[in-house]
Amino acid sequence: MSYRANVNEFRFLLDHVVGFDRVAATERFDEATPDTCAAILDEAARLATGVLAPVNRAGDLHPARLENGVTRTSPGFAEAYRAIAEGGWIGISATSEHGGMDLPLSLATCVNDMMAAACLSLSLNPLMSQGQIEALEHHASDALKELYLPKLISGEWCGTMNLTEPQAGSDVGALTTRAVPAEDGTYRITGQKIYITWGDNDFAENIVHLVLARLPDAPQGTKGISLFIVPKYLPDADGTPGAANSLRVVSLEHKLGLHGSPTAVMEYDGATGWLVGAEHGGMAAMFTMMNNARLGVGVQGVAIADAATQRALVYAQERRQGRAGGTGTIIEHADVRRMLAQMKAETFAARAIALSTAVAIDMANATGSADWSARAALLTPIAKAHGTDIGNEMAQLGIQVHGGMGFIEETGAAQLARDVRVTSIYEGTNGIQAMDLVGRKMMDGGEAALRLLDEVETRAEAARTALPDLAGPVWQAAETLRESIESLATQEPAARMGVAVPFLRAFARVIGADAHLSAAMAERTEAGGDTGPGPRRTLAAFYIRRLLPEHAALLAQVAEGQDGIAALSPEVLAG
Amino acid sequence: MSYRANVNEFRFLLDHVVGFDRVAATERFDEATPDTCAAILDEAARLATGVLAPVNRAGDLHPARLENGVTRTSPGFAEAYRAIAEGGWIGISATSEHGGMDLPLSLATCVNDMMAAACLSLSLNPLMSQGQIEALEHHASDALKELYLPKLISGEWCGTMNLTEPQAGSDVGALTTRAVPAEDGTYRITGQKIYITWGDNDFAENIVHLVLARLPDAPQGTKGISLFIVPKYLPDADGTPGAANSLRVVSLEHKLGLHGSPTAVMEYDGATGWLVGAEHGGMAAMFTMMNNARLGVGVQGVAIADAATQRALVYAQERRQGRAGGTGTIIEHADVRRMLAQMKAETFAARAIALSTAVAIDMANATGSADWSARAALLTPIAKAHGTDIGNEMAQLGIQVHGGMGFIEETGAAQLARDVRVTSIYEGTNGIQAMDLVGRKMMDGGEAALRLLDEVETRAEAARTALPDLAGPVWQAAETLRESIESLATQEPAARMGVAVPFLRAFARVIGADAHLSAAMAERTEAGGDTGPGPRRTLAAFYIRRLLPEHAALLAQVAEGQDGIAALSPEVLAG
Repeated sequence: MSYRANVNEFRFLLDHVVGFDRVAATERFDEATPDTCAAILDEAARLATGVLAPVNRAGDLHPARLENGVTRTSPGFAEAYRAIAEGGWIGISATSEHGGMDLPLSLATCVNDMMAAACLSLSLNPLMSQGQIEALEHHASDALKELYLPKLISGEWCGTMNLTEPQAGSDVGALTTRAVPAEDGTYRITGQKIYITWGDNDFAENIVHLVLARLPDAPQGTKGISLFIVPKYLPDADGTPGAANSLRVVSLEHKLGLHGSPTAVMEYDGATGWLVGAEHGGMAAMFTMMNNARLGVGVQGVAIADAATQRALVYAQERRQGRAGGTGTIIEHADVRRMLAQMKAETFAARAIALSTAVAIDMANATGSADWSARAALLTPIAKAHGTDIGNEMAQLGIQVHGGMGFIEETGAAQLARDVRVTSIYEGTNGIQAMDLVGRKMMDGGEAALRLLDEVETRAEAARTALPDLAGPVWQAAETLRESIESLATQEPAARMGVAVPFLRAFARVIGADAHLSAAMAERTEAGGDTGPGPRRTLAAFYIRRLLPEHAALLAQVAEGQDGIAALSPEVLAG
Repeated sequence: MSYRANVNEFRFLLDHVVGFDRVAATERFDEATPDTCAAILDEAARLATGVLAPVNRAGDLHPARLENGVTRTSPGFAEAYRAIAEGGWIGISATSEHGGMDLPLSLATCVNDMMAAACLSLSLNPLMSQGQIEALEHHASDALKELYLPKLISGEWCGTMNLTEPQAGSDVGALTTRAVPAEDGTYRITGQKIYITWGDNDFAENIVHLVLARLPDAPQGTKGISLFIVPKYLPDADGTPGAANSLRVVSLEHKLGLHGSPTAVMEYDGATGWLVGAEHGGMAAMFTMMNNARLGVGVQGVAIADAATQRALVYAQERRQGRAGGTGTIIEHADVRRMLAQMKAETFAARAIALSTAVAIDMANATGSADWSARAALLTPIAKAHGTDIGNEMAQLGIQVHGGMGFIEETGAAQLARDVRVTSIYEGTNGIQAMDLVGRKMMDGGEAALRLLDEVETRAEAARTALPDLAGPVWQAAETLRESIESLATQEPAARMGVAVPFLRAFARVIGADAHLSAAMAERTEAGGDTGPGPRRTLAAFYIRRLLPEHAALLAQVAEGQDGIAALSPEVLAG
């Protein structure tokens, strides 16, 4: 059983839960009409279901490999990539100036969700190019834009990002790759980079690396990092690739999952590069790119949660076992039903959080509003960490629904769990996301967070008469979270780091519940008022009455503070 | 970094937390003196650390494979197996009559814990033999015992268990393998069995299969199942293996983990077998074996949690990154410390639960007490499900501590997560364990459970003056659990199944907290009273004040009942 994109679910979320109508109402995105959106979602669903999903298993069974310095990709990946490129999907949110579709990120997020669910390993390729396109649009010179953007947007060339070095992972400021100015205005780049996603392939005419490096006079740390564009083949003025640049793939990693995605160790040996943005201004450019990439990774988690749910649901309806009633399949067992219900409810909530984040980013871009910017900044680490936590947890539940067959690779349930595992690590581990939330994102004293809770409580108040058993717990949980935020805001940021992870999850529980409540209310309105519990309300009840209570236990951890953690010295832990 | 068995931890648990002194005081186990126990644990630790741990990675990289019908095992496995057999470890709890050590299960559990942590895939082999030995001791004729037990206990022959068939997994009663009586008193066994752990190997002189099958006149369901012993080579009266029996390995599974352990599809084609126990009495024999096997699997989870904790701790103390204080390694980061603390605290609690279960089984065997039997029956599903849940969760946390390196196979962190995954599925999925707990194990109206809570509360009362901040929450949590049990006991068993899993976890949280409280009290007593917080108390505080609060959220799920789950029809879930 393969993944099938569920267009109705995306449309319901956009139309009734995350307020996409506000994005479509802006002048900036006035082309995102309901008809356009519907057409985009339908086309993307067709591509994901019909072209990407069928190659997913081959990527796992036949990993990308390095043969005499040439990266050979998995069977079918080249053809599927071409279908993505020819459909114009790489430039979905790029500006139209160089061939992009210029659509809102909210819509691009739905498309990326479908692609990731269908074949996560291949979907990472266009995602890397999209990040590079965005960085170049914001920071590159007009000459570089003219040369590179049309090729990247058309998909003729692929983009990569080169940040990490063996000694510099989460601490990017520790990197040591050098960039020496040459007389012709270019630079000579020398150093080793690791974990380079899609660092090479055998289907693009050229591979364009964005590389962080230090100029000779660079200050230490992140303030001394500059960004360079370093193509695999040096293009002439017309964009025709010529001589090979001085760079190579040293090796590909042997990974737990994502076998179809070549993760390269790259070596630059005096490679020719061009500066992007200002000298020592590389981190600003990387932050532009990384911020949206974090949402993109959160969506990968949601996507795999969806794929795992679909797969488990089909299996549970086919597998006959035991004294089940009804159809005689395991879905009749209450505990199997419970697992499937959790998968469905968690996926909905995590997707709503991701799409709310995309809407906030679109609104910030369209209106320049500081409030929307603050909302986007607040939600991004939650969308990333919670989306990928749920991706991991639901993929594991998916295995559990399969019973013994879940441990056998041929069902594909295990592949989903292996593939999604890295999403809670890359683009900033989920611990780092949580520290960002309680640190940088609460430097406003919690103002943006409390403003969001005001909205949650207003919605809960409005729903109280219609759905008291759901609205009440949501309002109360928002209040409990509010108290936690107000208390955290009085502490030094450094004192919050040990309780950041449970805090982030509690926050996600509350806004996930808010999304379910909105869905239940929308269903009620569409049905014309009080017509009894429909599917959305039933699912909302599952989330709000069974999963939301976790927030109290998590906030109890937050209230404990981190002193008790610091007391557990390495000696105690080793004892 | 490899696993190192921590003998002090086992001794502390036996001596101060789970009450092993009561076992040693029985006449049945009067040979389990402190000196004997210490020697056993030291020897087992040497074997696990020195012989098993070094072959663990090879088992993953070079899976067992089938070559022209012959099962070839992973490099080093044959030698490591011989060391286990020659040390007498296979018969550690077998009766001395046929060469066993006749030691209490509490001690054997510690040994199996070390072996599983060092190399789970190989450790499954002696575990299968141990289960077979136990079944034969209880149910086989004297002639069969004389022939098979010495060979199994010495490790010259290996044992397997053949339950599952393609259409009969959790529902054993659906199996169709046939056994036809022959004129010589033997039987001809015909059928296919799947998921046969260590179904074959290339290092034992003979492989002895215990096979569940139906006689021609058998009633339907589990009441028509008989147990047969079916050797790979037919032994003569002296036990010398002769002609090959009519059975073969059809294929080995391609699994997520445990690559070193060959999981076979077995075909019996009129193979010669001998009846074990009464006709149609196979399930009784299997239950004997399965019950202790469930504890054994729970211990596998604990073991991998331990191995993952050790590996993550070493990595966190070696990996330099970011602006960490102190040593400059990532263990200085509060969130990394939090993850390691959770791994340590969860492993301790899950191991205490497993060892408490072993003590209860030993006491039941030694004294014949119905109360101890009921305690063992109550704790077994909790030890299995919670131990393996924690094994899975801690192995995932271990990957997270490794950051990007966790996703790369060479660190070994991912292998632990892959290997342990099946433990929450085999020997009855954790959902089935939970249903056993709220169903069969509460047919006494919750009496055994409430008696355990009485003891928990008594210990909490006794600790209230010395450790009020720990004793108070434990007492209160026990009370909350008591109310939940009393409420569940009023419902039809069928109505409890949808809330079984959260109930089991809440139960584990409470008794895990009780174990931590006992540890903290023992430390205090050993130190001569109130000398400030030592390591055990610090760890107990982490568990009781941060992890125990989860019980309330879990019991809120239980209180919701399962009606809201049943309402989520397949159509709703697919929508």
